[in-house]
Amino acid sequence: MGVILHTITLKTYLCCTNFKYMTMFNKETYKQRREVLKQKMGSGVLLFLGNDDYGLNYGGNTFRYRQDSTFLYYFGLSFSGLSAIIDIDADKEIIFGDELTIDDIIWMGTQPSLKEKSHRVGVEHTMPSTEIANFLHRCVQERKTIHYLPPYRAEHKLKLMEWLGVPPAHQEACNKFIRAVVSQRNYKTAEEIVEIERACNVTADMHIAAMKVLRPDMYEYEVVAAMEAVAAQHNCQTSFATIATINGQTLHNHYHGNQVKSGDLFLIDAGAETEMGYAGDMSSTIPADKTFTQRQRQMVELQNAMHYRAVEALRPGINYMDVYDLAALELVEGMKAIGLMKGDAHEAVKEGAHALFFPHGLGHMMGLDVHDMENLGEIWVGYDGQPKSTQFGRRSQRLALPLQPGFVLTVEPGIYFIPELIDQWRAEGKHNDFINYDQVEGYKDFGGIRNEEDYLITESGARMLGKKIPVTPDEVEALR
Amino acid sequence: MGVILHTITLKTYLCCTNFKYMTMFNKETYKQRREVLKQKMGSGVLLFLGNDDYGLNYGGNTFRYRQDSTFLYYFGLSFSGLSAIIDIDADKEIIFGDELTIDDIIWMGTQPSLKEKSHRVGVEHTMPSTEIANFLHRCVQERKTIHYLPPYRAEHKLKLMEWLGVPPAHQEACNKFIRAVVSQRNYKTAEEIVEIERACNVTADMHIAAMKVLRPDMYEYEVVAAMEAVAAQHNCQTSFATIATINGQTLHNHYHGNQVKSGDLFLIDAGAETEMGYAGDMSSTIPADKTFTQRQRQMVELQNAMHYRAVEALRPGINYMDVYDLAALELVEGMKAIGLMKGDAHEAVKEGAHALFFPHGLGHMMGLDVHDMENLGEIWVGYDGQPKSTQFGRRSQRLALPLQPGFVLTVEPGIYFIPELIDQWRAEGKHNDFINYDQVEGYKDFGGIRNEEDYLITESGARMLGKKIPVTPDEVEALR
Repeated sequence: MGVILHTITLKTYLCCTNFKYMTMFNKETYKQRREVLKQKMGSGVLLFLGNDDYGLNYGGNTFRYRQDSTFLYYFGLSFSGLSAIIDIDADKEIIFGDELTIDDIIWMGTQPSLKEKSHRVGVEHTMPSTEIANFLHRCVQERKTIHYLPPYRAEHKLKLMEWLGVPPAHQEACNKFIRAVVSQRNYKTAEEIVEIERACNVTADMHIAAMKVLRPDMYEYEVVAAMEAVAAQHNCQTSFATIATINGQTLHNHYHGNQVKSGDLFLIDAGAETEMGYAGDMSSTIPADKTFTQRQRQMVELQNAMHYRAVEALRPGINYMDVYDLAALELVEGMKAIGLMKGDAHEAVKEGAHALFFPHGLGHMMGLDVHDMENLGEIWVGYDGQPKSTQFGRRSQRLALPLQPGFVLTVEPGIYFIPELIDQWRAEGKHNDFINYDQVEGYKDFGGIRNEEDYLITESGARMLGKKIPVTPDEVEALR
Repeated sequence: MGVILHTITLKTYLCCTNFKYMTMFNKETYKQRREVLKQKMGSGVLLFLGNDDYGLNYGGNTFRYRQDSTFLYYFGLSFSGLSAIIDIDADKEIIFGDELTIDDIIWMGTQPSLKEKSHRVGVEHTMPSTEIANFLHRCVQERKTIHYLPPYRAEHKLKLMEWLGVPPAHQEACNKFIRAVVSQRNYKTAEEIVEIERACNVTADMHIAAMKVLRPDMYEYEVVAAMEAVAAQHNCQTSFATIATINGQTLHNHYHGNQVKSGDLFLIDAGAETEMGYAGDMSSTIPADKTFTQRQRQMVELQNAMHYRAVEALRPGINYMDVYDLAALELVEGMKAIGLMKGDAHEAVKEGAHALFFPHGLGHMMGLDVHDMENLGEIWVGYDGQPKSTQFGRRSQRLALPLQPGFVLTVEPGIYFIPELIDQWRAEGKHNDFINYDQVEGYKDFGGIRNEEDYLITESGARMLGKKIPVTPDEVEALR
């Protein structure tokens, strides 16, 4: 590792994103977004906390840099060490950060100045980072209200404590600010769709690569290596920690140390993130062998039916919770045909019996975050402030609003056989009217199935984003 | 991305390192390390802050997990959400964390319990994470002294504030604790060397892969993709952010967006980290074309001479600052032969004139951190508390102690032509007695050269760790 002047370690952080400013939208995009936000808020001082670099095992050895998504949305600059303020009453926008010194240039290479970077996003005023505490203090003295968004990183909490004197336990984000941001970021523009589709195309290639390389006796991490190399070849990051596992029944399994055996089902949930920060997110399920077994094929076809029933329902105006219900209904009807469930399908879904096999939600908003705006609070992003269901399964649905043109979301139903959950429900006699536990027992070694595609809601319906990845057993087997 | 019960997002963090406990040393290793530490410290309460997961753009979307290296060294457990205490006076060791619930098992898969994990490293006592504040409060009441190491993450600072009531500005690490840890971690044991050598072998394969794939017209990130795929295929992470650049003269250049042109020199500084957290770290310089130009070859041969002069000097007892001086002397002698420097070589090194071309140090300790123990403070790790030189170049040397058997360190001399630095020194008339600026002007488009290998100091000298990567022009060209 390059042994440099240790005294400038902090400054070298910046070089991680050297020149990244070139992959941003036109400055008018950012100016317009801020104008809309100012109108929505009306008055007050809006504080935007940029993200800093973060040390893995010491300060100078940092994780890959990731700017805060709301900061990216309004200010476009993917550099550590920045904060921004919109003083609506004074109609003034300021980016706080530090200009480069001659030393910085020597060690990090030539870079645009903070002034130049700020001009690129239409912000005229810059101030040294050390000035922000004084600036905010003056705002308080002038009885201006300072609004901020939920601090989701420890570094945010330290800054709010230092700058505003508010201890972490009392840092309360402004709901009006949250709702204003959500009401903008919800609707993806044409230029955002181009970027998201680029992420989706790389994401699709990651899955297709996995479908081509997976063989019995490989280790899970070898499949991950092949997939992530595809992202890297496109200068993309992963939009979240890759799931690639023979234990698909464990929903969030990031362990990659197992060896794949003949007969296994291999579940992948992975996506790419473009240089500008937009995410793709897809899932697929592949047989370890060249073909699915008859039992696997039957269950994959049922999962496909859930998926396409949901996809066909996508259109403006339909509540995404109703789409979830359609997928759940399809599941119950199919499980009845196979003999694992019984009784009235609508009643089973209403009571939540389907959640034994489908314990998560149907999908989520996607954009600058793979779970878009999750840091702003699911209750605002997915429920517009309304209370959520507490029912197991249904309570995991992240989006329960009428769909609108411009929304980008994932569709990702799944079928899982989780031995511990089956044992628990059976022991509790839960949903005995709907579940044939004796039959279910025979599937405890089955694993899990999920597929996932990304959709844009249009004026007339929905459009799949990115190239198609194989979904049906025939399509998947054709690549094996 | 898997849509799970959002209420258990925090708990799912653990699954990122699911079963990672299996790649640790025998429990006796950890018990013995703690015994030695207790004897060195004599009394007091030692607080070990484990690292938590950290959100990129929202809490649930985390960076890859990395445990604190000192925690790994004494407690071996690579899991988020842990802290540990050694109460020397009460002769008691406790790991604080949370047991898994049935929900955790459903969503994260079966895992050993905290009790089981702790037993694996020889710790008998566990307590819930919520108990640590009370525990420490009682220690204070009993007038026990609580020692901790420097908090290098924002999350550490928040914990110390919450648990001990000490605001971040007043969190003072214990120098005695630091020195005790350094005096243990400095000396790598046989089982550590095996692990470091595994990291070095994967690191070498990363460099060899780059040497094979690099071609004019490729983008830098395509080379990075090929290298990091090698690490991933071995279930390794990178030990730091990969440097792979046509602008090698910018010492810490993590930008990968340039297209490689015929005639370029391509500088790589990259390493692998094993599952247990041990690092490899190597550098190499490759011509974009199949062969070096005559001018490149001449300068690479001079850099090689610096490298081998340093390597041949490695032995117990020699101060690493003296080895730095040997490399610098070799540089000046070579530069005189080429006509870029003049005057007395020893005098030039003493005055720091060599640093125009070699502005960084010769190397650093390597182990569980690529810059081993950097979070504990260079002044303790590399200088044993003694003051450092302030001379440009020399002040970047991270290690200025007599070498001892068991030390593992890097040797990484470099030669750079940094246009801005050349202009600045020339304008200031700096070292006019030693530098032929007119001749140097002709090299301003040259770029930079570095190579790097990892060495173990033995009883009789030193041993290179890991497989050899090409160093000389002939060796490099043989792979092109």
